[in-house]
Amino acid sequence: MDRPRVGLKDVARLAGVSVKTVSNVVNGYVHVTPAMRTRVEAAIKELNYRPNLSARNLRQGRTGIIALAVPELDIPYFAELARFVVAAADERGLTVLIDQTGASREREQLVAEGFRAHLIDGLIFSPLALTPEDLAARMDETPMVLLGERVYEGPADHIVVDNVAAAREATLHLASLGRRRIAAIGAQDDVAAETSRLRLAGYFEALASAGLPADDRLVVHVEAYHRADGARAMASLLDSGPAPDAVFCFNDLLALGALRTLLERGHSVPGEVALAGFDDIEDGRYGTPTLTTISPDKQSIARQAVNLLAARMAKGPQAEAREIRVPYRLVIRESTSG
Amino acid sequence: MDRPRVGLKDVARLAGVSVKTVSNVVNGYVHVTPAMRTRVEAAIKELNYRPNLSARNLRQGRTGIIALAVPELDIPYFAELARFVVAAADERGLTVLIDQTGASREREQLVAEGFRAHLIDGLIFSPLALTPEDLAARMDETPMVLLGERVYEGPADHIVVDNVAAAREATLHLASLGRRRIAAIGAQDDVAAETSRLRLAGYFEALASAGLPADDRLVVHVEAYHRADGARAMASLLDSGPAPDAVFCFNDLLALGALRTLLERGHSVPGEVALAGFDDIEDGRYGTPTLTTISPDKQSIARQAVNLLAARMAKGPQAEAREIRVPYRLVIRESTSG
Repeated sequence: MDRPRVGLKDVARLAGVSVKTVSNVVNGYVHVTPAMRTRVEAAIKELNYRPNLSARNLRQGRTGIIALAVPELDIPYFAELARFVVAAADERGLTVLIDQTGASREREQLVAEGFRAHLIDGLIFSPLALTPEDLAARMDETPMVLLGERVYEGPADHIVVDNVAAAREATLHLASLGRRRIAAIGAQDDVAAETSRLRLAGYFEALASAGLPADDRLVVHVEAYHRADGARAMASLLDSGPAPDAVFCFNDLLALGALRTLLERGHSVPGEVALAGFDDIEDGRYGTPTLTTISPDKQSIARQAVNLLAARMAKGPQAEAREIRVPYRLVIRESTSG
Repeated sequence: MDRPRVGLKDVARLAGVSVKTVSNVVNGYVHVTPAMRTRVEAAIKELNYRPNLSARNLRQGRTGIIALAVPELDIPYFAELARFVVAAADERGLTVLIDQTGASREREQLVAEGFRAHLIDGLIFSPLALTPEDLAARMDETPMVLLGERVYEGPADHIVVDNVAAAREATLHLASLGRRRIAAIGAQDDVAAETSRLRLAGYFEALASAGLPADDRLVVHVEAYHRADGARAMASLLDSGPAPDAVFCFNDLLALGALRTLLERGHSVPGEVALAGFDDIEDGRYGTPTLTTISPDKQSIARQAVNLLAARMAKGPQAEAREIRVPYRLVIRESTSG
């Protein structure tokens, strides 16, 4: 670069004070007279001086940055969550660095092991593939708050939604409409896919409690939780036997994909097939029909995560780990109430 | 923290070599014998040593991090773009720090002025509210690539889509279907709202070239580009006079909101009202009807942005600024072809 970086010395020279005084002003120390402070600040402004925060933070052991690691940003649930986390962190003067893991266990291990620990003061982490063993083996001591389904026994703070209860409630709602052949879309073969396992458990619990038989042919496995997976899953359900009269999809994107297939093939929703999702993304509020869904309190998740992390950053890694359950509610819309 | 950080000295002791040798291995210098390198790497692994990259990067003047600043992550266009940018950066070993400006001019100025320049090697910036004057006044010399509509005369590299031509093409498509009362949703009062200004210009050009009168009552202003704004705008159009027979919405979210209002009020799409959007977000491919839209090549935007930025980071701020136009295409779906 042509222009040399403006330093403390330049500010000191212009203000006619010592470098030490400029440093005291920049670091916010109190033992500086107001007149002196004003002079230094005027010089800082005139020279457009910016303190070298990296060096300063390194000395203080703080960067003012926290990371948020989520599986995929273009899954609207995570984009909406990220927005709330950025807002909550902003209120505390923290900058959020956002990471996409692509739900790969390898990349999730990398995140947990602190590949960027030198940059961040703390981590809010929503893992999908990480196992409890991976977490137990974690060497990095950067404060961390976990979001999500899996129950980790371990040292990390954790924010969860009761997935089994929520999935049960959604399925019971479908049964309460008199539906008998209730399908589930979103099972996964991967043993590490905890979201899928818990929501499937809630689905089966609801069938049992409603006195409906569990039928494996009504449970459709998917590779991922995108619209395309839901569309394909619904097509395979319709191709493989008599149509279900209701479908519980394990997220809203799957439900929106399934909805598209149903309407394309001339099935009325909810007339012939009632449909419920999970996540309450904005998308589902504007489709036709609008989508019945489980709505986790995303703002609360974000706030609690930032609060827990800030507390952990203050107390250090030895403090006892906490688990916080966040409320959810069933939001009934046109896809089941028509 | 209880456990002291593992340092170069610990690695050197375990490997039985000098600190200088460990440092040479860590920094990737070539004058280390393969046998020595293997020994050091084994010790690094055993001790789980992580080099203090902050300190190293500070010396080299590099962090390996670039920032991507976008208005809102829960606008799917930006979430999809962010995903492509992260992937393109990843291929070059760069980490992406994602920033939300909320489209506020103040926060955009902060980003342009380099409030985090000490942390990043470069910036990919999609401003909405920043003026050319703001940019001309920029003091920070962090390499920057701009994305988006506004034509900035200035020192920064810039990636654009031809918004006027694209909006004209979408509107002409509606006219080619025989529609005569073609409305536009997405005008904005803010003079800095360049997206809106350019797309409106393309809309008016198309009307003129199709021999249709421009009617201000068919142009609806919105506050933001979300589904709710589109739904409200469509309602006000329907309430204020005879229904239009086509609507060009300045992004897909507006179109999806407008679609919801149309269907809710019993207007068939495209039978009575044909509808086109802009952005080609996944959402529009799965609604019923699917959405006709302008599809900018997001992957190309992301790749070119990272390439330009990498070149700029290598060459320094003096290199001549480049402007790159990225292709788009009109994708015709059910909302106009039914």
